[in-house]
Amino acid sequence: MIQSQEKSDRVLVRISELTVQKADEVVWVRARVHTSRAKGKQCFLVLRQQQFNVQALVAVGDHASKQMVKFAANINKESIVDVEGVVRKVNQKIGSCTQQDVELHIQKIYVISLAEPRLPLQLDDAIRPEIEGEEEGRATVNQDTRLDNRVIDLRTSTSQAIFRLQSGICHLFRETLVNKGFVEIQTPKIISAASEGGANVFTVSYFKNNAYLAQSPQLYKQMCICADFEKVFCIGPVFRAEDSNTHRHLTEFVGLDIEMAFNYHYHEVVEEIADTLVQIFKGLQERFQTEIQTVSKQFPCEPFKFLEPTLRLEYCEALAMLREAGIEMGDEEDLSTPNEKLLGRLVKEKYDTDFYILDKYPLAVRPFYTMPDPRNSKQSNSYDMFMRGEEILSGAQRIHDPQLLTERALHHGIDLEKIKAYIDSFRFGAPPHGGGGIGLERVTMLFLGLHNVRQTSMFPRDPKRLTP
Amino acid sequence: MIQSQEKSDRVLVRISELTVQKADEVVWVRARVHTSRAKGKQCFLVLRQQQFNVQALVAVGDHASKQMVKFAANINKESIVDVEGVVRKVNQKIGSCTQQDVELHIQKIYVISLAEPRLPLQLDDAIRPEIEGEEEGRATVNQDTRLDNRVIDLRTSTSQAIFRLQSGICHLFRETLVNKGFVEIQTPKIISAASEGGANVFTVSYFKNNAYLAQSPQLYKQMCICADFEKVFCIGPVFRAEDSNTHRHLTEFVGLDIEMAFNYHYHEVVEEIADTLVQIFKGLQERFQTEIQTVSKQFPCEPFKFLEPTLRLEYCEALAMLREAGIEMGDEEDLSTPNEKLLGRLVKEKYDTDFYILDKYPLAVRPFYTMPDPRNSKQSNSYDMFMRGEEILSGAQRIHDPQLLTERALHHGIDLEKIKAYIDSFRFGAPPHGGGGIGLERVTMLFLGLHNVRQTSMFPRDPKRLTP
Repeated sequence: MIQSQEKSDRVLVRISELTVQKADEVVWVRARVHTSRAKGKQCFLVLRQQQFNVQALVAVGDHASKQMVKFAANINKESIVDVEGVVRKVNQKIGSCTQQDVELHIQKIYVISLAEPRLPLQLDDAIRPEIEGEEEGRATVNQDTRLDNRVIDLRTSTSQAIFRLQSGICHLFRETLVNKGFVEIQTPKIISAASEGGANVFTVSYFKNNAYLAQSPQLYKQMCICADFEKVFCIGPVFRAEDSNTHRHLTEFVGLDIEMAFNYHYHEVVEEIADTLVQIFKGLQERFQTEIQTVSKQFPCEPFKFLEPTLRLEYCEALAMLREAGIEMGDEEDLSTPNEKLLGRLVKEKYDTDFYILDKYPLAVRPFYTMPDPRNSKQSNSYDMFMRGEEILSGAQRIHDPQLLTERALHHGIDLEKIKAYIDSFRFGAPPHGGGGIGLERVTMLFLGLHNVRQTSMFPRDPKRLTP
Repeated sequence: MIQSQEKSDRVLVRISELTVQKADEVVWVRARVHTSRAKGKQCFLVLRQQQFNVQALVAVGDHASKQMVKFAANINKESIVDVEGVVRKVNQKIGSCTQQDVELHIQKIYVISLAEPRLPLQLDDAIRPEIEGEEEGRATVNQDTRLDNRVIDLRTSTSQAIFRLQSGICHLFRETLVNKGFVEIQTPKIISAASEGGANVFTVSYFKNNAYLAQSPQLYKQMCICADFEKVFCIGPVFRAEDSNTHRHLTEFVGLDIEMAFNYHYHEVVEEIADTLVQIFKGLQERFQTEIQTVSKQFPCEPFKFLEPTLRLEYCEALAMLREAGIEMGDEEDLSTPNEKLLGRLVKEKYDTDFYILDKYPLAVRPFYTMPDPRNSKQSNSYDMFMRGEEILSGAQRIHDPQLLTERALHHGIDLEKIKAYIDSFRFGAPPHGGGGIGLERVTMLFLGLHNVRQTSMFPRDPKRLTP
């Protein structure tokens, strides 16, 4: 066991660096034993480091005894080993490894951390496309087994790619917004009142009282606008106590939130948000092509398409498209999930885009703080954004006038006492402003064409799952 | 009220851009009324935008009637106005404004958002240094008034500077780590068991059961290491149900967390973390000098000093220094807060640094998962880092062997059943690894030489404060 007994000058070479340039060099490598197979006086190993792997060989001879070959053959899969070996060019490409032109002839092998002999799931099964499993009767791994053993499931090339790309989404989001002059803020998650409606809120025991988990950072983002930060963003957990067991709901997810003051029209906000998403899509396609390809090997899907500038449809236009497709819907009715998806397909057919904005939602289906449309009292200055026909962002111009906010809250039957602090925030001068919240896991899922948000949450939380 | 009635081509000029280069131009500006003072047929206003302000003037004449002057004089402070005016060079510098060489001769003025007439606190009082308040008998604002009216308190130049700098800390932390090859992860905050000890944990009602709020992302960071991400970081809320009412404890704070696999010695980790902090300090001094100066006007302090490479002392050396200064302490005793501060002063005198590492803590005072020192069974491979004599990071090599981890947990009297998932994470091959968690609010406070962590948390949470 490495207990930091001593420092070492030994250089460990990365598997990704094992190419013909290193042929005939002696190198040290630390890696997992992905597979091992003894064959007479030889043992073939595949050594793995993240998404890279290389074939290695222990053969009875000058550098290895019979015992050593036997020892190597008996190392449990997923154990971590240090090996010293010579890099050798191979005559025939090794199709099953990422390092196809070389193999490693092992001279020494040490076990750094031994895995237990029985793995709860096999990595090769975990990256097998469903279709291959079905057609060829080969094993795949079901979602609960994956999630119960997430530490192993996350080692697959698919998982590594998904979460590297997700890290990239956060990076691109911040990079774009910092360049646009936004300030990053940190908002509290424990709050004293369920200011956004009490139904879907988790209760926390807070010393001798109760507190709640924030359902969004919205109030605090708005307070920062009232406090002159002008353009703010934050990335953090969002909590929803909804007993929804669907492919796209989690009880805890990561919100990418934006709020900004605008000058004259909330479309200034809509354009900033849409452009931020476009910069993310472009950045992912430029910088994460390897990851996108890796995931598509297991989960094939069409590349994500988007337009510049982003397509913006008004709600009434969407209604007309749906009605033309035979759907019956009232003017002030919200979109159901099936209609949302159908609309996505219709938009894709007509405009060839997987990303669009739906603007001017009916006032009746939006929260009380949504600014009404000054030209049509049944409409509002609010919008959703969609990827592959599923909602990933909801936003609006917010009411910044305490008088109107009070009226709208009363209209919605909200207890004014509970939202007093919220309304009071606007009493000392508040600029017109708007914003929106993006679900990180949904963006990752839909960009990659995956079908369950649990694939894009490292440790998902839903009504039935709290572990690991 | 701006309700997005129509789009406008009008260009709003920033106050920071109002310089002699713009002399005699007609411009539109949106700003807050910082002060207004009528004087005969004139009204002088100071208009403010974030940390910038400019003098403006409405005078009876071609462009303004007597009524308009009266109207301008009666606009409540902190209201937001749109003004059209001519930029005029002034002969004598205006010392009280950031734009000292020009003033704005107003031709039109509209109120965009009216503030209530009585402000709960005056911005000028809120930025007054304590000492000036005491010596000259002028008003300052106490902490509770500030925090109760945080939206206004955050508008001061001091608050704007503090939180812009804090945003910079997060940015520099991520920039440095991404360049070092770290991957950003998102860890769940709702957890099923109080895996780090049950005393200081908040309980959440989770549908029909109980859950807890994570006291740190440590378990999940370690699981990511076991899942081959090798080097990870995260920024997120950390919850501690401690009934501590001190200048440096919050019940919810922001953790900057790092975890990484290492090759041979945990000092590889210590060096990466220390270098990350040094890059943050350097970046702040390079990019945020204006903010540092602004804060120091209200809260004077010595510039933050650090060495390269970072000073690393062993715990026994610190004990010797304290004993030499007359403190009586046992070899296996933890540092009390006063001794921590004294040690900071002794280190500053001897080494001229405000930042140092204390390594090799007694095993007895560290958590069960801390790797014992292989050469001295009473010591451990663990460390704290200090800024201006206060702890900002705690970290260690973690035990990555399930057998030893079980032994140490039993030694600490921990119920193995409750940490089963934690221990099981290491059963399928785990590399040696270590890490640490940094408190964002503490780093901001101590870098700027402030004296209360509530100054560096936008909306602080402590046992007595849950609002706003």
